[in-house]
Amino acid sequence: MENKVVYSFNEGSKDMKALLGGKGANLAEMTKIGLPVPFGFTVTTEACNKYYEDGKKISDDVIQAIYEKLEELEIVTGKKFGSAENPLLVSVRSGAVISMPGMMDTILNLGLNDQSVEGLATRTNNRRFAMDSYRRFIQMFGDVVQEIPKEKFDKIFDGRKELKGAKFDVELTAEDLEEIIKQYKVLVKEETGAEFPQDPKVQLIEAVKAVFRSWMNDRAILYRKLNGISGSLGTAVNVQSMVFGNMGNDSGTGVAFTRSPSTGEKKIFGEFLVNAQGEDVVAGVRTPLNIDEMEKAFPEAYKNFVHIADVLEKHYKDTQDMEFTVEDGKLYMLQTRNGKRTAQAAVKIAVDMVAEGLIDKETAVTRLEPAQIDQLLHPMFNAEDLKNAKVIAKGKPASPGAAFGHIYFTAEEATVAAAKGEKVLLVRAETSPEDLAGMVAAEGILTERGGMTSHAAVVARGMGKCCVAGCSEAKVNEANKTLKFESGAEYKEGDVISINGSTGEVYDGALRTEEPGVSGDFATLMGWADEIRTLKVRANADNPRDARQAVEFGCEGIGLCRTEHMFFEEERIPAIRRMIVSKTVEERKAALEIIKPYQQGDFKEMYKVMEDRPMTIRLLDPPLHEFLPHTEDEIRELAKDMGLTYEDLQNVVDNLHEVNPMLGTRGCRLDILYPEIAVMQTEAIIGAALEVKKECGYDIVPEIMIPLTIEKKELKFVSDIVRETADKLIAESGIEMKYMVGTMVEVPRAALTADEIAEEAEFFSFGTNDMTQMTLGFSRDDTADLVNTYVDKGLLEEDPFKTIDVDGVGKIVEMAVKLGKQTRPNIKLGVCGEHGGDPKSVEFFHKIGLNYVSCSPFRVPVARLAAAQAAIKEK
Amino acid sequence: MENKVVYSFNEGSKDMKALLGGKGANLAEMTKIGLPVPFGFTVTTEACNKYYEDGKKISDDVIQAIYEKLEELEIVTGKKFGSAENPLLVSVRSGAVISMPGMMDTILNLGLNDQSVEGLATRTNNRRFAMDSYRRFIQMFGDVVQEIPKEKFDKIFDGRKELKGAKFDVELTAEDLEEIIKQYKVLVKEETGAEFPQDPKVQLIEAVKAVFRSWMNDRAILYRKLNGISGSLGTAVNVQSMVFGNMGNDSGTGVAFTRSPSTGEKKIFGEFLVNAQGEDVVAGVRTPLNIDEMEKAFPEAYKNFVHIADVLEKHYKDTQDMEFTVEDGKLYMLQTRNGKRTAQAAVKIAVDMVAEGLIDKETAVTRLEPAQIDQLLHPMFNAEDLKNAKVIAKGKPASPGAAFGHIYFTAEEATVAAAKGEKVLLVRAETSPEDLAGMVAAEGILTERGGMTSHAAVVARGMGKCCVAGCSEAKVNEANKTLKFESGAEYKEGDVISINGSTGEVYDGALRTEEPGVSGDFATLMGWADEIRTLKVRANADNPRDARQAVEFGCEGIGLCRTEHMFFEEERIPAIRRMIVSKTVEERKAALEIIKPYQQGDFKEMYKVMEDRPMTIRLLDPPLHEFLPHTEDEIRELAKDMGLTYEDLQNVVDNLHEVNPMLGTRGCRLDILYPEIAVMQTEAIIGAALEVKKECGYDIVPEIMIPLTIEKKELKFVSDIVRETADKLIAESGIEMKYMVGTMVEVPRAALTADEIAEEAEFFSFGTNDMTQMTLGFSRDDTADLVNTYVDKGLLEEDPFKTIDVDGVGKIVEMAVKLGKQTRPNIKLGVCGEHGGDPKSVEFFHKIGLNYVSCSPFRVPVARLAAAQAAIKEK
Repeated sequence: MENKVVYSFNEGSKDMKALLGGKGANLAEMTKIGLPVPFGFTVTTEACNKYYEDGKKISDDVIQAIYEKLEELEIVTGKKFGSAENPLLVSVRSGAVISMPGMMDTILNLGLNDQSVEGLATRTNNRRFAMDSYRRFIQMFGDVVQEIPKEKFDKIFDGRKELKGAKFDVELTAEDLEEIIKQYKVLVKEETGAEFPQDPKVQLIEAVKAVFRSWMNDRAILYRKLNGISGSLGTAVNVQSMVFGNMGNDSGTGVAFTRSPSTGEKKIFGEFLVNAQGEDVVAGVRTPLNIDEMEKAFPEAYKNFVHIADVLEKHYKDTQDMEFTVEDGKLYMLQTRNGKRTAQAAVKIAVDMVAEGLIDKETAVTRLEPAQIDQLLHPMFNAEDLKNAKVIAKGKPASPGAAFGHIYFTAEEATVAAAKGEKVLLVRAETSPEDLAGMVAAEGILTERGGMTSHAAVVARGMGKCCVAGCSEAKVNEANKTLKFESGAEYKEGDVISINGSTGEVYDGALRTEEPGVSGDFATLMGWADEIRTLKVRANADNPRDARQAVEFGCEGIGLCRTEHMFFEEERIPAIRRMIVSKTVEERKAALEIIKPYQQGDFKEMYKVMEDRPMTIRLLDPPLHEFLPHTEDEIRELAKDMGLTYEDLQNVVDNLHEVNPMLGTRGCRLDILYPEIAVMQTEAIIGAALEVKKECGYDIVPEIMIPLTIEKKELKFVSDIVRETADKLIAESGIEMKYMVGTMVEVPRAALTADEIAEEAEFFSFGTNDMTQMTLGFSRDDTADLVNTYVDKGLLEEDPFKTIDVDGVGKIVEMAVKLGKQTRPNIKLGVCGEHGGDPKSVEFFHKIGLNYVSCSPFRVPVARLAAAQAAIKEK
Repeated sequence: MENKVVYSFNEGSKDMKALLGGKGANLAEMTKIGLPVPFGFTVTTEACNKYYEDGKKISDDVIQAIYEKLEELEIVTGKKFGSAENPLLVSVRSGAVISMPGMMDTILNLGLNDQSVEGLATRTNNRRFAMDSYRRFIQMFGDVVQEIPKEKFDKIFDGRKELKGAKFDVELTAEDLEEIIKQYKVLVKEETGAEFPQDPKVQLIEAVKAVFRSWMNDRAILYRKLNGISGSLGTAVNVQSMVFGNMGNDSGTGVAFTRSPSTGEKKIFGEFLVNAQGEDVVAGVRTPLNIDEMEKAFPEAYKNFVHIADVLEKHYKDTQDMEFTVEDGKLYMLQTRNGKRTAQAAVKIAVDMVAEGLIDKETAVTRLEPAQIDQLLHPMFNAEDLKNAKVIAKGKPASPGAAFGHIYFTAEEATVAAAKGEKVLLVRAETSPEDLAGMVAAEGILTERGGMTSHAAVVARGMGKCCVAGCSEAKVNEANKTLKFESGAEYKEGDVISINGSTGEVYDGALRTEEPGVSGDFATLMGWADEIRTLKVRANADNPRDARQAVEFGCEGIGLCRTEHMFFEEERIPAIRRMIVSKTVEERKAALEIIKPYQQGDFKEMYKVMEDRPMTIRLLDPPLHEFLPHTEDEIRELAKDMGLTYEDLQNVVDNLHEVNPMLGTRGCRLDILYPEIAVMQTEAIIGAALEVKKECGYDIVPEIMIPLTIEKKELKFVSDIVRETADKLIAESGIEMKYMVGTMVEVPRAALTADEIAEEAEFFSFGTNDMTQMTLGFSRDDTADLVNTYVDKGLLEEDPFKTIDVDGVGKIVEMAVKLGKQTRPNIKLGVCGEHGGDPKSVEFFHKIGLNYVSCSPFRVPVARLAAAQAAIKEK
């Protein structure tokens, strides 16, 4: 045997999780610091891996090592395995490195057989207890280890109860239980062809093998896949001498937290059951007592427990979730681990613990999961309402928050209803930029198609509005104004449903919502995060409302101001359309002149909100057909409005039609075809900046961003126009002003030639949405379901539109960073895709040396925290 | 002066083209080997570059150097610049490194002024000749150097002719010409504000500056852009003492080739004009004589010329294109250069010269431009018909060859008409896979939309059928069955037009076509190419017909057999559709079972054609919606045929609809969703291979290619299915057979993670079409015009769908090559995109170490030659 494969509890420590599993390491740690832990030992994860390497065989070496520890355990406890006088009984529990549901959990009372059950009866002076323990053991072992259908045991047990007219288990006598044991043993013989194992050592080895086997059962494999846990970790097995909480009214069992997992309040929270074993608490046979009442029941044990809880929290420097048993008035600790908690609790506990001197600020900052922050910023459903709510479908959790409302199927109808004071949900097959007003008016948005980065999702997140997207179980019929679900539920215009954008769930009827308060502790914690992080956080915002929201959430600038959203407003779109149908440069320029004052006004507002903070404004990006209608009726109507023939306008629409708009004429390609667009937009940006600088004195350095660049010469063509226009305007104004011209890096070729592109670009902003689409060949509008399939089958680790695909997209982005810095060491680098608000992605962006991430306003706190955690992790 | 900026003709050589330009270097070379060249000197390209560096100023140093050489020239010729007795006259000609139209060409008779014209008159005893020379000089100088509109000179000249009632120039007397000179000088004074320069040195320097200026005129810049010539090369200026072919009937001028530029026949070919200057030949004032007749006119000079032509050809080891002048019976050589030639001539000359011992085989192989091969393989228009033909529009030369026919607007009508024996052209807005039958039936295809790699183009090239694609000047109305051109021409169904797929030109009416014969010389030359090249050449072929064609053209295997084309045939598509609408795996499997025998049969045929040659078969690639109709009527009809409700089928069509099909559910993603497709196709491939091996004994090693891979785990998922299926079938057959499983590398992420992917893939085939689309973000269906704009504006060097974009796509492909070899040093690497048949791209693929390129059958000879030239170049 090369390595030690079994550790006694007094041989390990909490730092040995990889080898002993979480449960085993903590049992060892508690033993080490002198807490009352029933003695035992842990079979290591390496032994589990060896079991698989050896073709699912447990080696003699491992068996031998277990036997040795067993002997030690007998000596320590003074009991003997299988003894008819003072039998040693043990529990066998799995204990993976990361806690995992779906695996074999626990076998209690192992070691009982026809002899030792008598010993237990004598020793405890409680024959019924002994027989009940043996009955339970056979049932548990038969089910979990021998894989005999549980129902067959239940049938025997229930048969006996019926025969005796017993309503509750407790009404059965020791004799009844002996009869049941007899029948159980017959069942085992029938099912396995052998007697129920009487040798406790055989029982033990079989139980260990069952734990090993459960590591590779379907549910465990699926769970690991879904949670990104490696299958090579293996599981440990804990063998611990039994203590009994069910030995009478001086015994009991419970679970407790050192602080409230809901609010973070510093006070022991937990539940306790007199005369019960652990499984009884879980099974909910009796209603457990509040932990406070334990003080009355077992004053000594309670005092002891409070003390131990305090010792453990100080020792682990985190709130603990503990299991314990009281046997004959004596307290035993069976488990401790860091407690799960709500976002609110996490914040309060972290800040309190700093105040208590238990942890430092850095540690505090790591104690809140960035993903949890959503809970702190968005309305949630009332917990009571939720208990009775009926889930009718599940879509993608596209934008967090909860909302209920009357459903409407067009932006117009939604707007009208909202104007009348109705709470409205906008329901669409998928949304397009023309639905914007309806989305603003609605409490939330539900779409049948599109994924996490569909139009609906992106815009909703930008607005901080809840959205369930890609709900493929729904069938939206916009013409008939009906919403049908696979579950059979059907709704029409005006009906009320509720949606939860944090979970993707859709509910029947109205569930009340609650605004969670953001406490002062949250601000404190975020302040610490800001001190620690080096990565700046900007927001994506296209209008003053979003910009204000982002500033409130602590953004340090705007990383992406899309100018096209400004174009869709009702008074502007006619001019845009006029521009699109222009046949000459002069016509186009005239139309652009109409738009300019609007744009300039918008930018002025934005600059005023942002004050001295930087703002990157992107030139017009979307394909022009997005600004035109597509159905014959709409085209006819618009043609009439514009004084064009239907054929002429249809022609324009036809010519702009694209088979793959994602790879079509958009971004700076528009400026290459129509340089006058770049001229107008530059004039509006610089003009606005000059005016605000003059009026308010802010030190504005406009950042003008050219989208979809693929080649240096192309970027030069457009940036020359921008610079020429800007320089002229600044010179004419007599005001001194610097500005920067940069580019989106969102097409693979831009990344591949970033060294050349950096000659023209003063900054790069990585558009990782489009980069992901082109690098992976996944259209985000089309492949949401496909991507799910890939993740489900384990072909991709994560949804690459949610968390950046480090091996592919990450590699090309990192390449661009290196190439860009080669040419321009001080080049400013940021990211403005959806990934800017995803914690794992933020960590990656920190690591490769970006200056900032930019995300939707509601993700700003998430990014701030994630950036701080990334900085801490790097140390 | 750091460098010598002016070289006398006896100071240079043919190897100094970069410094002296092509013309200057060859004049120096001829001087060096003792041929009769009028003496002169060349101002270097460096002087031109210095002119631009100095802000368009000619430096005193350069002027001084010119004057020094001028003095030397006076001494050598015994004449004097501006002399009234024996004046030195010179010609001034531009001479770039690469011959370039659009630049200033020639000024003759420079040195004439009011004095020297008298000297010329006296010396030649021909006053009229002298005056005519002076008149011509002022006109040319005024036009080219002083930029006075040519029409103003013409007006004066024609006015005089009218006044004198002269029909031809020759009718004007010396006195008339003197009067014209007077008026010319007045014109110059009016236009420039100064007298016509009388100082010959001033004339000379001004002329040199004019040549320098012309290097940067718009036409020259455009030409360089279009031909990829660097603007930093500069142009040289040649100053040469005049000889006169127009001094009487003992004088003359001509141009000649050492071999026929049309056929390559070894015989002097050329034209000759008695008593004329060079420009007269070009102007076509008189019909020139055949060069043979020169023997009678100037027997001595002719004999001399024949000798010199032979000397030059042996010296340059290539066929020469020469200019010469006879002055008073004495022969002077004015220029020589390698002669341009047709493909036929190039082949014959190259093979003949090897036979003559003039060049070796390697040199011979470099003497044919791979692009010229098309001329040898495709029908061309009759030259006579072409002379009178009317071009009505120009599209993209999408597939070479020429054809005429009656136009039809649907595949069905085209097929019907062709079946009746009509010659048919298929005219479509764009083609789709459903048009296949119509394309087969047609002589050629014309489309309004789509570029060089559109469906029409790719399929047509595959068939070797001529195609003009993306003819944006055409408006195809398929409903009304009309074809309108911007030029105003309009055609309806059944009308006749002609198209040239090699040039993109569309002609009114029928032009006859001719099949050029492929001579034995061509086969000889290609044999030498095969001996030299290391890069193998395969073909893309989806059916036995194409495969046979490819073998005929010398392919060494099939690099891409697309299986989807087999699916479109009439008897198969119902089963495919049945598969698509399947709701269960069982239904899908049943439908696939119907298709399998067809597929297996097709593969058997292919294997029989290919014998021992390798064949890479790609699993199903296109998105499934390509197999379904899209209009309501068609869907209704199909639903009825299939026994489905319209709603059900419409639902399937809707669900398969994609916003960006290029980035959608296709390639191996289909196998991930429906593994049974991969199973069926593998069974068909391996089944066919086993049968043919058994029947014919060929050593078949099937290569199964999985398309659109982005990730190793994804590839493993599919390749596991393929291997399992194949192994089972082979084991059952009892026949020994190896096979390979590989993947397309066509999505950027596959290239970026090629090291991992190579763990699963035994070969890579680079799909550079899709890789170009995704790396540059250009949808080939949408951006043909945009790409043209980019090339026109110099933003991209070349159409990246024609020639691989080395800096972007090339970089990522090269990266994949390195990563792939890192993991699997012997990995087989090929390319099967359109680039496999493009000479420049082939050179790149050779350089980065691919094993083979695969292209459409008609490009196979092109690729073979290009591969050989790349190997030669590398040495």
